[in-house]
Amino acid sequence: MTIKIKRPRGTRDFTPEDMHRRNFVRKQIEPVFKRYNYQEILFPTIEDVHLFEIKSGGEIKEHMYVFEDKGKRKICLRPEATASVCRMFVDKLNDMKKPLKLYYFCPMFRYERPQKGRYREFWHMGIELIGSSSYESDAEVIEIAYKSLKNIGLNFDLEIGHLGILRGLMSELGMDDKIQNRVISYMDKNDMKRLRDIIKNKIILNLIKLKGGKEILGKAEKLLENYKNAFNSLMELKEILNYLDIEGIDYKINFGVGRGLEYYTGMVFEIRIDALGSESQICGGGRYDNLIELLGGQPTPATGFAFGFDRIMNALEIQGIDIPDRYIDLIIAPVNKEVKKNAIEIASKLRERFIVDMDIMDRKLGKILEYGNEINAKFALIIGSDDLSRNRVTLRNMRSGEQKKILITELIDKIDRELNLNKELHK
Amino acid sequence: MTIKIKRPRGTRDFTPEDMHRRNFVRKQIEPVFKRYNYQEILFPTIEDVHLFEIKSGGEIKEHMYVFEDKGKRKICLRPEATASVCRMFVDKLNDMKKPLKLYYFCPMFRYERPQKGRYREFWHMGIELIGSSSYESDAEVIEIAYKSLKNIGLNFDLEIGHLGILRGLMSELGMDDKIQNRVISYMDKNDMKRLRDIIKNKIILNLIKLKGGKEILGKAEKLLENYKNAFNSLMELKEILNYLDIEGIDYKINFGVGRGLEYYTGMVFEIRIDALGSESQICGGGRYDNLIELLGGQPTPATGFAFGFDRIMNALEIQGIDIPDRYIDLIIAPVNKEVKKNAIEIASKLRERFIVDMDIMDRKLGKILEYGNEINAKFALIIGSDDLSRNRVTLRNMRSGEQKKILITELIDKIDRELNLNKELHK
Repeated sequence: MTIKIKRPRGTRDFTPEDMHRRNFVRKQIEPVFKRYNYQEILFPTIEDVHLFEIKSGGEIKEHMYVFEDKGKRKICLRPEATASVCRMFVDKLNDMKKPLKLYYFCPMFRYERPQKGRYREFWHMGIELIGSSSYESDAEVIEIAYKSLKNIGLNFDLEIGHLGILRGLMSELGMDDKIQNRVISYMDKNDMKRLRDIIKNKIILNLIKLKGGKEILGKAEKLLENYKNAFNSLMELKEILNYLDIEGIDYKINFGVGRGLEYYTGMVFEIRIDALGSESQICGGGRYDNLIELLGGQPTPATGFAFGFDRIMNALEIQGIDIPDRYIDLIIAPVNKEVKKNAIEIASKLRERFIVDMDIMDRKLGKILEYGNEINAKFALIIGSDDLSRNRVTLRNMRSGEQKKILITELIDKIDRELNLNKELHK
Repeated sequence: MTIKIKRPRGTRDFTPEDMHRRNFVRKQIEPVFKRYNYQEILFPTIEDVHLFEIKSGGEIKEHMYVFEDKGKRKICLRPEATASVCRMFVDKLNDMKKPLKLYYFCPMFRYERPQKGRYREFWHMGIELIGSSSYESDAEVIEIAYKSLKNIGLNFDLEIGHLGILRGLMSELGMDDKIQNRVISYMDKNDMKRLRDIIKNKIILNLIKLKGGKEILGKAEKLLENYKNAFNSLMELKEILNYLDIEGIDYKINFGVGRGLEYYTGMVFEIRIDALGSESQICGGGRYDNLIELLGGQPTPATGFAFGFDRIMNALEIQGIDIPDRYIDLIIAPVNKEVKKNAIEIASKLRERFIVDMDIMDRKLGKILEYGNEINAKFALIIGSDDLSRNRVTLRNMRSGEQKKILITELIDKIDRELNLNKELHK
């Protein structure tokens, strides 16, 4: 009985080639996080469903994978990281010195219609800066997002907004939280019709249409001059932008940045690459100063962002950014069964230093070299009885086909040298 | 409204300290896999539940997290990796040159009663060698498991068995697959009573009690001399052991090694650390030559193993194996608001080379140094107006308290030198 079983729709298998590419990109981004002293954390794949019902917004709730475990508890696959990080902070990290600088890299789950750049299991890589309300902390997270993406060579558009301005204004105009969340959700979806239906106030509509360089700050100041809370938030945004100017970071201000999650309270930002089409957003983030308290912690300010890692991978392809091929140092080819014991010993020695594959299928030399080509081996080490009787082996350059005899006692040094020469030649 | 939400039972949060330790160990094991040319792959967290109903064995089936998705498909959280790897192989990797050498590191899910060393979400790190039936491939996977654990300094017991011998013998005695699986399952649970109930044949009972060094091979040969298939499998085991002897690997033969999964067909092995108590097994693996065909692929031999990563972490603690603390290079302390712009510029420059934190909370110098101590900063860079007017800053050694004035133009070189000196001193 054989059954062909399918991978669940919207999920993916990552081949060695896929993982080589993903790991390469991960290893370009992670060091940026680390150089700012962000430390990796991780939280469970499954969570109590209530965690995401508090403040994640209607859209995520609709698309969660929810199920009952055998103990009849309502569990879900995490749809996003920030709520988990805050729950974890309340549980375990509350006593650490602030600010806490955290990062994570793990899959998220949303039951949506799959399409290019949208998967049911998708990877987020993000940071959270917990415990500081300063404008420097907002600027720092934007700076890290920006430099991480520059580090991998991407071109992108960064747009910065501030929901504290908008929420401040709406509160001063007497609009309650529920309506505020709806406004922000419509902004996120760019649903101008519904926006106009619920907002009668001209100032709000004019504000969220403001988009551009620093020259629009003056216009915003005029609009908000009679609304103290909104105006103070605008001044905060200005300080964030001044910091980013020192760092030479290229951005657009957009007072219409909404975000699909309800927990944002201050600065918000998004990074897009239009060429990605309908799923063009590769990063989103902002300040969420109430979420930790809502989850039972002390009032604690926080800010952060998440990269859509899969979309970054797609963007690299679209922008033609090269990821170096994977090479291995050596393929060892024992030419007959009699030399196998020696080959095992030599492989063991060389593996202390090099990446070494060895034929384990009793193949003929030609077939082993074919395999060596497929796995991108730089050199083949051919081990034959004749050579062995003279304490030597044959080193073959897989690209040029050139072969050298090498004494076994000198193997490591000689291979080291050849690998370095090879590197020089192909720089 | 605040709600205190609990982490699901049997799951864990990993703090920065936890992840530092886990990443350290991961980075000791992964290079061993890589030096044998194993390449990372990954598969979905969720799978069609049928994938694990085919050959994973009754125990896993009982403990799976199973649920219906919104499309009414029966989905589960993966309880183990090998079935997923085989499904992926049939789907996507079939055309690659054999042997395929693959590794993975990801969480598994089983709904069991949580206890020390047993979690509902737990991490497996393992390899699969697909496409070779040679004894060298079995020896290679055992060798890699052994060397990986030695590489992190663990003491452990390795036991090697061979279900091909036992299955061969049982087939020749007319016992069908169903009974064979029950026998092997009872062996795995060490359930001697039930074993004796279904096995009437003395040879089987005597065989599975055989345990020891190579001297027991002679006894096994005598037991099996009239059972050709079993005897041939025994000769294969002998060749595997000869290879391991060349590598100087320390093992015990145990014909009673059973394994809880039904798909094993040949060599099987387990690694235990008794001090871990009831959950003492940190590694299990073996050959599974039928699984790929059962999943709709061409008949393809395969062998591999998985580490219980969480148990390895527990074992390191029990055996008192040190994991180095995490340090960061610098904490930057701007002494007042006026120097902030300069501090941002200096931080940005230094982050091209060092791990740098900077105060972003307008704290006083004393508080910043306290924070620097908590995050294990090696040096503090104190930036004050006075110093700046002379184009310099103060570098403070956080351990000795010694302070030096450094010209800003010479910052990178001087810090480089101090960090190297510091390393020398604490070797």
